Amino acid sequence: MGEFELIEAICRMSDRLPKNGFEGIGDDCAVLEIGGGEALVFTADALCEGVHFLREGATAYEIGQKTLRVNLSDVASMGVRPVAVLLSLSLPDDLPQGWAEAFMVGLTEDAARYGVALIGGDTTRTTGGIHLSVTAIGRGATANLKRRRDAQKGDRILVTAPLGGSAHGLKDILAGQLDTAAAATHRLPEIEIEAGAWLGARSEVHAMMDLSDGLASDIRHILKASDTGAAIDLDRLPLDAGATIEEAAAGGEDYKLLLTASDEGCDALMRDFEAAFHRPLYLVGEITAEGLTWREKGKKVERELQGFRHF
Amino acid sequence: MGEFELIEAICRMSDRLPKNGFEGIGDDCAVLEIGGGEALVFTADALCEGVHFLREGATAYEIGQKTLRVNLSDVASMGVRPVAVLLSLSLPDDLPQGWAEAFMVGLTEDAARYGVALIGGDTTRTTGGIHLSVTAIGRGATANLKRRRDAQKGDRILVTAPLGGSAHGLKDILAGQLDTAAAATHRLPEIEIEAGAWLGARSEVHAMMDLSDGLASDIRHILKASDTGAAIDLDRLPLDAGATIEEAAAGGEDYKLLLTASDEGCDALMRDFEAAFHRPLYLVGEITAEGLTWREKGKKVERELQGFRHF
Repeated sequence: MGEFELIEAICRMSDRLPKNGFEGIGDDCAVLEIGGGEALVFTADALCEGVHFLREGATAYEIGQKTLRVNLSDVASMGVRPVAVLLSLSLPDDLPQGWAEAFMVGLTEDAARYGVALIGGDTTRTTGGIHLSVTAIGRGATANLKRRRDAQKGDRILVTAPLGGSAHGLKDILAGQLDTAAAATHRLPEIEIEAGAWLGARSEVHAMMDLSDGLASDIRHILKASDTGAAIDLDRLPLDAGATIEEAAAGGEDYKLLLTASDEGCDALMRDFEAAFHRPLYLVGEITAEGLTWREKGKKVERELQGFRHF
Repeated sequence: MGEFELIEAICRMSDRLPKNGFEGIGDDCAVLEIGGGEALVFTADALCEGVHFLREGATAYEIGQKTLRVNLSDVASMGVRPVAVLLSLSLPDDLPQGWAEAFMVGLTEDAARYGVALIGGDTTRTTGGIHLSVTAIGRGATANLKRRRDAQKGDRILVTAPLGGSAHGLKDILAGQLDTAAAATHRLPEIEIEAGAWLGARSEVHAMMDLSDGLASDIRHILKASDTGAAIDLDRLPLDAGATIEEAAAGGEDYKLLLTASDEGCDALMRDFEAAFHRPLYLVGEITAEGLTWREKGKKVERELQGFRHF
């Protein structure tokens, strides 16, 4: 049973449970409206040594930062700000002296940077590798929430930054080249906390999510949730530090935002984003009625692009 | 660096972060008041194969139930009801066919039993053993919240059920005796969801927490948080299935509630609890000015009792 089959089985089982006011599995975060036009959002993600990171490939400080960032990115993708995290820290006996403290310094320095509280969690021993699990909580106006299901036919598809740097960096790290720009991006992706909250407040933005498994994989979640299709222009994908088009289209762990915006509002959105952040939004395609089409120079091309799978 | 030293370092670092309205680390759960006299509470706990459970010592179905219960128990200990959980499921490649599904059936059947939503999470591969991480969310009246810091000198100390069964059962399991009553208790502790909510609504109850590391360890958290001491009558500790006094006083993973109640309200509380649940509350000692004293037949005895440590 692969990751997606297991997730489907979990979704079926969770569907039979009470909801208790929560809008549950199906988006980057679960949503709970708490009155006064406000909502909380919730997301949980685990990072395992040997799967998501290599102990020798990054410092404990960097791993602390990355553990926080990949979770905050899910909150940003809902269009609201992260406010708090819980951390479960499972550590093996053979950990070098000082690893846990350096990890916590990295995590809490980033928490301070993003204005997030550390409100609880758990520490435990593990017989395997390091295992890090974070639950992140976000808070914002209910009206600002962006969901995967809200893409509409005719929407433009945009991304907030160049892609593929993390996938390219992982190759560098596995080849022993730890000091390239791409390797640094893989170890420590820049996340879109400010952009997420800004885009949440823009009504032109319909669907939004963060790019964790790669555009080719992640866009399918929007298409499935909103019952639409997409055409992506491969030659318009912005390429990060040394990345190939394939890495930009199918590489994982970029943690940039993927969004759809109304055709008529798109120009103003792009102009205002650039004015606010001094960097562009990148137009990479459009939402269609059905299917996923790759284009080059405006013409359909056949490509088998798959995102990163955790299983 | 042991577990408690690491937790202290984490607390110091988290103290410097913004609070964003959360009452953070220091109790079984973090608290967020959401208006209308209501609060949400949050807790996260991880279970690791080889540390918290043995794959051959329990079925996947039982491990699913226990994973949920140890987290819901923390919510119950705050005096409110659990409403939702997030689950991070990290699974090794060598897992037997059907393990993940049986685990999820156990977890979701218990979620239905306790009225809890499964709102999100994460599945991933791990190179070590099975790793399970749950964040539980509770909701209730702010006025009903019970905290460790609220014990008062002169309070009676009570527990909601016989103790030591889980510690005794772990010894049975490690000795290969998987089918004793105590082994069943260790694999699947009964938790106090209804009792927790009921006790939350009683103003006689001051401090409350759940017994996860053993009375001798857990009571110290209440004493430290409320700046008090305690005298515990070892010969009044209710003993679960075959447990010794030492197992009841220092054994982990009972998941019963430990509470303090005002001296003058205690009789009515005990009478009303028995009427509501058809089982007694057990009076085991009293809150004093300072120190932790063990007594037998009303006289102080010297005992070195320590709870379970995860490191």
